[in-house]
Amino acid sequence: MIDINADMGEGFGAYQIADDAALMRYVTSANVACGYHAGDPMIMDRTIRLAREHGVDLGAHVSFPDLMGFGRRKIDMPAAEIEAHVLYQLGALDGLARRAGHRITHMNPHGALGNLASSDAVIATAVARATLDFDPEIAALVLPGSALEQAMTALGGRTIRLFLADRAYLANGQLAPRGQAGAVLHDPAEVTARVLDVLKTQRLKTLDGAEIAMPVSAVLIHSDTATAVTLAGALRQAITAAGLTLTPLSRQVRLPDNAEKDN
Amino acid sequence: MIDINADMGEGFGAYQIADDAALMRYVTSANVACGYHAGDPMIMDRTIRLAREHGVDLGAHVSFPDLMGFGRRKIDMPAAEIEAHVLYQLGALDGLARRAGHRITHMNPHGALGNLASSDAVIATAVARATLDFDPEIAALVLPGSALEQAMTALGGRTIRLFLADRAYLANGQLAPRGQAGAVLHDPAEVTARVLDVLKTQRLKTLDGAEIAMPVSAVLIHSDTATAVTLAGALRQAITAAGLTLTPLSRQVRLPDNAEKDN
Amino acid sequence: MIDINADMGEGFGAYQIADDAALMRYVTSANVACGYHAGDPMIMDRTIRLAREHGVDLGAHVSFPDLMGFGRRKIDMPAAEIEAHVLYQLGALDGLARRAGHRITHMNPHGALGNLASSDAVIATAVARATLDFDPEIAALVLPGSALEQAMTALGGRTIRLFLADRAYLANGQLAPRGQAGAVLHDPAEVTARVLDVLKTQRLKTLDGAEIAMPVSAVLIHSDTATAVTLAGALRQAITAAGLTLTPLSRQVRLPDNAEKDN
Amino acid sequence: MIDINADMGEGFGAYQIADDAALMRYVTSANVACGYHAGDPMIMDRTIRLAREHGVDLGAHVSFPDLMGFGRRKIDMPAAEIEAHVLYQLGALDGLARRAGHRITHMNPHGALGNLASSDAVIATAVARATLDFDPEIAALVLPGSALEQAMTALGGRTIRLFLADRAYLANGQLAPRGQAGAVLHDPAEVTARVLDVLKTQRLKTLDGAEIAMPVSAVLIHSDTATAVTLAGALRQAITAAGLTLTPLSRQVRLPDNAEKDN
Repeated sequence: MIDINADMGEGFGAYQIADDAALMRYVTSANVACGYHAGDPMIMDRTIRLAREHGVDLGAHVSFPDLMGFGRRKIDMPAAEIEAHVLYQLGALDGLARRAGHRITHMNPHGALGNLASSDAVIATAVARATLDFDPEIAALVLPGSALEQAMTALGGRTIRLFLADRAYLANGQLAPRGQAGAVLHDPAEVTARVLDVLKTQRLKTLDGAEIAMPVSAVLIHSDTATAVTLAGALRQAITAAGLTLTPLSRQVRLPDNAEKDN
Repeated sequence: MIDINADMGEGFGAYQIADDAALMRYVTSANVACGYHAGDPMIMDRTIRLAREHGVDLGAHVSFPDLMGFGRRKIDMPAAEIEAHVLYQLGALDGLARRAGHRITHMNPHGALGNLASSDAVIATAVARATLDFDPEIAALVLPGSALEQAMTALGGRTIRLFLADRAYLANGQLAPRGQAGAVLHDPAEVTARVLDVLKTQRLKTLDGAEIAMPVSAVLIHSDTATAVTLAGALRQAITAAGLTLTPLSRQVRLPDNAEKDN
Repeated sequence: MIDINADMGEGFGAYQIADDAALMRYVTSANVACGYHAGDPMIMDRTIRLAREHGVDLGAHVSFPDLMGFGRRKIDMPAAEIEAHVLYQLGALDGLARRAGHRITHMNPHGALGNLASSDAVIATAVARATLDFDPEIAALVLPGSALEQAMTALGGRTIRLFLADRAYLANGQLAPRGQAGAVLHDPAEVTARVLDVLKTQRLKTLDGAEIAMPVSAVLIHSDTATAVTLAGALRQAITAAGLTLTPLSRQVRLPDNAEKDN
Repeated sequence: MIDINADMGEGFGAYQIADDAALMRYVTSANVACGYHAGDPMIMDRTIRLAREHGVDLGAHVSFPDLMGFGRRKIDMPAAEIEAHVLYQLGALDGLARRAGHRITHMNPHGALGNLASSDAVIATAVARATLDFDPEIAALVLPGSALEQAMTALGGRTIRLFLADRAYLANGQLAPRGQAGAVLHDPAEVTARVLDVLKTQRLKTLDGAEIAMPVSAVLIHSDTATAVTLAGALRQAITAAGLTLTPLSRQVRLPDNAEKDN
């Protein structure tokens, strides 16, 4: 069971950053900006409706409050403030989702908050706690082994492991820094082949020459690249052709201790 | 059954505009800013918890997105945008309320949005529809005879009629403009006596010498005046002494066609 | 003497809305967003430097404070506030221009503020006064006969008359509303031919069949259309081929009473 | 020659945080918020005019763009962005100052940006460079020995050394952290006596029992405390009574290598 997801609704006002309508045809889950790093109520509403029409899962793509920095800058704030901000964003997205007859079933933090939630246990716990306080059924989309995965698990929450389609990894499981040569893959065919290989073998060759376990069932496509739609289409076709089943996040269960639930 | 309510949580970041903690002891319902004209997630959270601790009803005080203008400036936007903004705010407040174990049971629009919702049927319908789409149980706090009252009623929603404790009215039922002499009452004793008289007789002498019906069961205190806390205490004492029952909005029912509900 | 100008620097943070670098090669003046409807300090800085490198005049494209609405929504505010906002924006742009060795020589209001400044004498005067208080040498880019033209002239300020390259006009000299069929011209060849005709004859056929005077020496290209760069190039070539001289706004003088200045 | 200065104009929209009008009677210099951590164009305008009326020097109190955090949170951004933000703020304040017939003669960074500019050479240099690029005559208000003092001096800029009236210091010259007992002084009489002693001896007893040099000629009063106005009045009276001369920053010169200038 494989999910293809992408960040969506990342425009603001008159600004658009990706072709969400085209991309929505190929993904199974959408991570929707909540007005903090991107997104406004009208864009959120359109994106939610688009997701609902395509049977695409709705996720909250929560962030630091930083439109000018697109959520990519760390803002020093205590864990209690991060919790409040995550609840505000989950609620705001839910407010619009209710009317559209959709429902938030996953969450993943964006940009600087995402990086911190992967590496910092305190921030990971703040994000996880706010999410589960809002709705204990919401799953977190996580990098394998990340602080967020651990925090969600410790709090009894669901996680689904994510592979970044176009990024190289290092032997320690971290992403290769963008500055490094080869850190970002651009060729759709190469990306597709690599993703397929990871999904089938659950292993990955790293940029620094190692081979590591990569136990993932979700693939993230960056929506703001020129080839995003092409790649999404190719990936969807390849995954199906390989005999894997495209499955939105909410249909995927990773709940060893809560096996009775299936959402 | 009488409700005393006040606008709450109208600070932002380091700014505070009223002594919410003191006022909360006297009101039965709080109209909480949702981050648009005032309020940020931390302040919203504190205000919600304070309300919950005091058994005070939680309302969403929705607004145009205009912190610099404190929501007092009309922003030209289509009804569909107003709906999306109202849903965003209701959701955001609800996101924080869930964790605190509280629940939104009423809504009233603030400032310029409030004025428009009182007088403009299109905007009133947008606000009413968004509110009921979010949760059909939420009551609107309305001025008697206002467009918002009519819109809520037309959509099958609940309304509770509001009297502004310190404002003079005109024979047409509208508020006397602030600029006019006598439009704002300042003396707590005078305000209290007038409110009591209105609550008992359901009639009011207007600034222009008429006497009009004033069928209200909720009294709004402006929280940002110097005498707000004193007035709230005096009013609470006077209402109780007069044999009236202080009753939060959610315990008051104005539902001719839905008489089986009592929320 | 003809100026080609375009609105520039209308991105924000990660958002881009036009290909400023390409367009800058063809225009003689740039109207640069100041952080209110668009633009942030980094984008303003890049745009100013680009203008300076290309010998392009720098103008302040001032607006209501409304990033979410891209400055297209009227915000009700008193004239005194509009003045303060215009001064803030002029100053902010100047702060960055100083370092880059460039200088603000013109101003035109954007979106809703632009529409109001064209039709409302009070708002036009507020914009004009703030501009001239900031620097009496700054010229306003105006629609012929507009309230802003009158206000600038009444205050002794300079104006340069603008023709909108891709918009149809009505017999009363106003723009045909965008909703009306034929209100926006899309074909670069047609636009170029029409502009040339206007520049040479100083007359224009209107959408409603009249012919009116159109005494203009500046042409505005909308930077956010797909064909903006193509159109700018075609227009520049056509104007030169027609024997007209491309002249930035600051080199154009419309100063009957101040004939000694040529800035 | 002694300057008393305070942070001013730190309201926003409907919010007020200090009694600027009262305080302005006692200070000789004002550090005015520029819309980033506080302040909006109307408040900036009022504060500038108030300063001009009282013959009080005008300074730019620049900050990270963070109204919700009142500029107290570090935002990770490159030095080039900090420079652009400082220029934007200086320009914006200057835009309003021009009209009011006032002029920026000093600058000091606020909150998190101030802390970083005191301790981090890269950020100090960014702030200093932007300031001097805007106007090489502008002096920086600095803590003795800070990175900002060094950066300004290295770039040939003016500095004036500041003593924080109500804060305890440590032997290393740094402020005692607010959390530490005794870190903040509250008694106006004690504060006044200590300031006088520092001004006369140019030495200070630290919280950790040392005595250090404190070569300062400017005293900062925190405007947002309950006793700010009382303290300012007492301090002004005491300084004059002690035979010291109250002198705005722009009249104080600390320019060993540029002795020909006196601004």
